Amino acid sequence: MGERLSIALDAMGGDHAPASVVEGAAIAYRKNPALSFIFFGRESEVAPLLEQFASLKPVSEIIHTDEKIADDAKPSVAVRQGKYSSMRLAIEAVRDNKADAVVSGGNTGALMALSKLILKTLPGVNRPAAASLFPTHTGQVVMLDLGANLQCGAEELFQFAIMGDAYARAVLGIEYPKIGLLNVGQEDSKGHPEIREAAQMIRESDFDLNFYGFVEGNHVPEGVVDVVVADGFAGNVMLKTAEGTAKLIRIFMQEAFNSNWATRLSYILASQTLKRLRKRMDPRRYNGAMFLGVDGVAVKSHGGSDAYAFSHAIRAAAAIVEHRMNQRIIDELKLSKIHHANQETGAA
Amino acid sequence: MGERLSIALDAMGGDHAPASVVEGAAIAYRKNPALSFIFFGRESEVAPLLEQFASLKPVSEIIHTDEKIADDAKPSVAVRQGKYSSMRLAIEAVRDNKADAVVSGGNTGALMALSKLILKTLPGVNRPAAASLFPTHTGQVVMLDLGANLQCGAEELFQFAIMGDAYARAVLGIEYPKIGLLNVGQEDSKGHPEIREAAQMIRESDFDLNFYGFVEGNHVPEGVVDVVVADGFAGNVMLKTAEGTAKLIRIFMQEAFNSNWATRLSYILASQTLKRLRKRMDPRRYNGAMFLGVDGVAVKSHGGSDAYAFSHAIRAAAAIVEHRMNQRIIDELKLSKIHHANQETGAA
Repeated sequence: MGERLSIALDAMGGDHAPASVVEGAAIAYRKNPALSFIFFGRESEVAPLLEQFASLKPVSEIIHTDEKIADDAKPSVAVRQGKYSSMRLAIEAVRDNKADAVVSGGNTGALMALSKLILKTLPGVNRPAAASLFPTHTGQVVMLDLGANLQCGAEELFQFAIMGDAYARAVLGIEYPKIGLLNVGQEDSKGHPEIREAAQMIRESDFDLNFYGFVEGNHVPEGVVDVVVADGFAGNVMLKTAEGTAKLIRIFMQEAFNSNWATRLSYILASQTLKRLRKRMDPRRYNGAMFLGVDGVAVKSHGGSDAYAFSHAIRAAAAIVEHRMNQRIIDELKLSKIHHANQETGAA
Repeated sequence: MGERLSIALDAMGGDHAPASVVEGAAIAYRKNPALSFIFFGRESEVAPLLEQFASLKPVSEIIHTDEKIADDAKPSVAVRQGKYSSMRLAIEAVRDNKADAVVSGGNTGALMALSKLILKTLPGVNRPAAASLFPTHTGQVVMLDLGANLQCGAEELFQFAIMGDAYARAVLGIEYPKIGLLNVGQEDSKGHPEIREAAQMIRESDFDLNFYGFVEGNHVPEGVVDVVVADGFAGNVMLKTAEGTAKLIRIFMQEAFNSNWATRLSYILASQTLKRLRKRMDPRRYNGAMFLGVDGVAVKSHGGSDAYAFSHAIRAAAAIVEHRMNQRIIDELKLSKIHHANQETGAA
């Protein structure tokens, strides 16, 4: 791998692939010149695109394959078939130490299933989780799980807290991230037994986890915590509801500014400020769901990503590698196991 | 009760009670002169407030009590103690046919527990659910359950669909409401077994339910359905995340318009339009969570409600009574039982 940070890209995954993938790589490379890329996909389509980005070409390689995993393929089918799919080959490049991370805009379920199968999970991790960032009043928040595990026990939620902590340190650069458990109220008596038990596990653990307690859906956009932990069902509902609500208000604002000459003039006057605000809320900047707990770095880019959004997924993957996030998860979970064992034998 | 529609009000429930309750009643009365009110609470506090609203006084009665249920009281404690609490007496007025509906801004858990205990559930209803409205791109959506039932089986979700349908017909005036089940994807294979089974029950039922299928968190603000059904955990997360995200963007917009002279001028130019937009999104207009499935009309007003917000909870309660929503739920559930029975005996 040399000194460059090598990213394996599923060139055929996503609605606008491979164009969005190649141009996304070019944007990411401009921001981070330490990157190099391996594109997995149809050479006849990828090579002409690469020609358009003179600076990108010297740090890029194409591995040709004609196969791709269909967007509507069931994960179980994707795992059995498609041995030479662009997604699978890209993941295998990470397993074989040809690349440091893989990014794909393809079928989410297939990417999760193949990542688990090919890369395996980190020692001590029960189940990998999908994590993503979201803007808040004070900065950004890490949300997990976003749908990989619909129902979770206390131990899984506890592990998600450790993995989310490591992710926030790596990607947000927060030294001591505040961790919240998503619930329907803040009092200790609220919620499922699994959530209450997870809260107790986090509180009683010896780690250096900065546990805030329970948070409700409205606390998350306020930015009261840096990491919010939920089972995959609630986490998915939270992320998509926040995205949908933000989009709705964007549409309402557009309609408002278009309503008459005064509002149109108003928009011109405030356009610079509103553009900055739109940038701050731009969902493309938060693109890239990280599969935490997989032994290797695998990032899912939104299927509808354009090049700019895709570049953010690449940059998120690079940050995780650079901050050696997985090593931190391994270390913390190892500590956890030792701690549990000590507690059980009364040695703590 | 005469021809007036009588609303029992817990005058002591809520952060700004009793002032917000009395003034809220005055606002509701201006909008709907068919209303009358019974205030349950401290006469020495309520009577002077009533003096301020000359038109309200003739249609109001005060039932004095010194007791109130504490905001942090556990529902189980509230049920055993406080036999003469303002909340309990207000609910009993509905049971005793002295009032057509009860509205309280007090302790949510206590209100639900006491409503179930005193009013009982409608015949055929397994568990009451809390429902509320939320603005969407095309109008408003009924969301339920919002936290009364954290985990639900397929039968409960199916009943929520029927109750949400009746609520949307009564309060939104939609003849044939589109019903969605909240899930993490739209494909039939997505989600918990309970959700998939509930979808099948709705699809196979003989009722006149307009079933859209599964919806995700981002579809709800788009307004693709008129009713969205979820278990109380996911529903609570959805509602609070939407509220919190809307509030965050409101703050961002305020900051944006305050940033320099151009943006301040811009705000002045667009202020009429922006005010209309703010009104459309005003959470106070959506105040009032209805306890569906209770044999009587019980509405929870947000604890932090001001008078304007409280007036909306009263108006929601009145609309439910006027549209005989509970009778519709009884009829539909009866049909459901007959249908199920017929199916089982092969008579369908």
